[in-house]
Amino acid sequence: MVVLRGLIISLALIGGIAKADIQWRIPDKNNLVMMTLPQGKVVVELAPEFAPKHVKQFKNLVKKQHYDGNKFYRVIDGFVAQAGPKDGSAKDRGVPLLALEGEWGFKKDWPFTLVQTGDLFAEKTGFVNGFSVGISVSEKKSWLTHCPGVIAMARGNNKNSGSSHFYIPNGQAPRYLDRLMTIFGRVIYGMEHVQSITRTAVIEGQAPITADKYTPIVRMQMMSDIPKDQQITLAVERTDSPEFLARLVKRKERKNPFFFKAPPQVLDVCQVPIRSKLMNE
Amino acid sequence: MVVLRGLIISLALIGGIAKADIQWRIPDKNNLVMMTLPQGKVVVELAPEFAPKHVKQFKNLVKKQHYDGNKFYRVIDGFVAQAGPKDGSAKDRGVPLLALEGEWGFKKDWPFTLVQTGDLFAEKTGFVNGFSVGISVSEKKSWLTHCPGVIAMARGNNKNSGSSHFYIPNGQAPRYLDRLMTIFGRVIYGMEHVQSITRTAVIEGQAPITADKYTPIVRMQMMSDIPKDQQITLAVERTDSPEFLARLVKRKERKNPFFFKAPPQVLDVCQVPIRSKLMNE
Repeated sequence: MVVLRGLIISLALIGGIAKADIQWRIPDKNNLVMMTLPQGKVVVELAPEFAPKHVKQFKNLVKKQHYDGNKFYRVIDGFVAQAGPKDGSAKDRGVPLLALEGEWGFKKDWPFTLVQTGDLFAEKTGFVNGFSVGISVSEKKSWLTHCPGVIAMARGNNKNSGSSHFYIPNGQAPRYLDRLMTIFGRVIYGMEHVQSITRTAVIEGQAPITADKYTPIVRMQMMSDIPKDQQITLAVERTDSPEFLARLVKRKERKNPFFFKAPPQVLDVCQVPIRSKLMNE
Repeated sequence: MVVLRGLIISLALIGGIAKADIQWRIPDKNNLVMMTLPQGKVVVELAPEFAPKHVKQFKNLVKKQHYDGNKFYRVIDGFVAQAGPKDGSAKDRGVPLLALEGEWGFKKDWPFTLVQTGDLFAEKTGFVNGFSVGISVSEKKSWLTHCPGVIAMARGNNKNSGSSHFYIPNGQAPRYLDRLMTIFGRVIYGMEHVQSITRTAVIEGQAPITADKYTPIVRMQMMSDIPKDQQITLAVERTDSPEFLARLVKRKERKNPFFFKAPPQVLDVCQVPIRSKLMNE
């Protein structure tokens, strides 16, 4: 928290990344969604390894331009930004409901990086492929955790009623939703634009926000369907790389002189940044 | 997470609040700061009961228009928005350094409402007057916790070097800063505008943000110094009220049919909203 001015990192393009790079990976463009908002572009990495049916349906919907022109109609500061096709559209009513993909058995061959034991909502937390994961050893279950910037499917009271409407947590992680909802991706670029989506929920006594003020999704496309010269090429830090592990340790130990007294050696999995870098600006 | 449309609460002004109201209180306007950003107004409630020296100095600086025209020059998505007078201004160099007010003994006569035991960063968490507090029973210490929306003084490596530059956490709570920094207030209105402050930190490969794009503080004033017809009058929910306590219990138990399976009966103190309401729109 040093009063730093001129902190901006002005690194030039550092060139391509070898496929064998152990610190960085280039996500498959068939698993990247570009969401264009009036304020800027947001890139989501989908998680077919965790929520295959949700990812499959979401990709189909994106390809059919199901979300173009939709609005973020339920946006609560410190909670979520939720969007989907206009209430009652015939096109949306025809979208199949999906069985919840909220938790699963723990797969031992995952590149799991432990972050913390004894988290309030999970016996263990950590990362798999950049996604934050909770684990219950006693129940032999694992799940993606509701950190800010994940994308999850909205649903009704029926746990198997999600179809197209989605939400992105925009505040302190609503972890009580873990295991009860299907998280199927996470924002890897442009989260600041998600944070500036117009809030539709007002406080008591405040004038309502009329629907014409809601933030629209200008366009939602699979990155692989965008002409190459308009694609955003991103690299994401590998959460099982030695560099990342070393950063986790530093983040726990806080040996920097700024910390005149060491904080508890614990980490909130939702407070650990996973780096992205831009390869083509 | 039900797909709700038309969620907007369109309550009209519900009239004055009696001084003896047990659910709501009207903060003293001598403890409220109005920060005008280009995107909207933000109201901060100061915490003289926790950080008297910081509050006193901050109020003096606000009254002297020390922050008018300042910029948010260090804004990191998911971390903090930090502002202060331009580097090296003579006016700023003359501001006294303050001794840290990061923790203190626990005062038994506080209206403390317990939220959680066994939080990662504190033996107990809870609220006092709407401010989230961490407690170490074994060390007999308490402190304000770094939830999104608190305002704290920036400093250098010397723990007693804070003076005027401040930050507001804008992402998952950076709780590792608890006890090491002085939190002296919290945003009670307009947090969405803090969330939309232009990020100055870019990712690797991205073009730097030039200083002319930084979000300015158009004006910062004590609410009590603003003409009455331009003041924002807010009520804040009392965190020791029976209504608030009942809501905490509901939030832990989640008996709503949406929760087909109850989540763990735990609460993250930074994920519990404290309601404000507007009395004069």
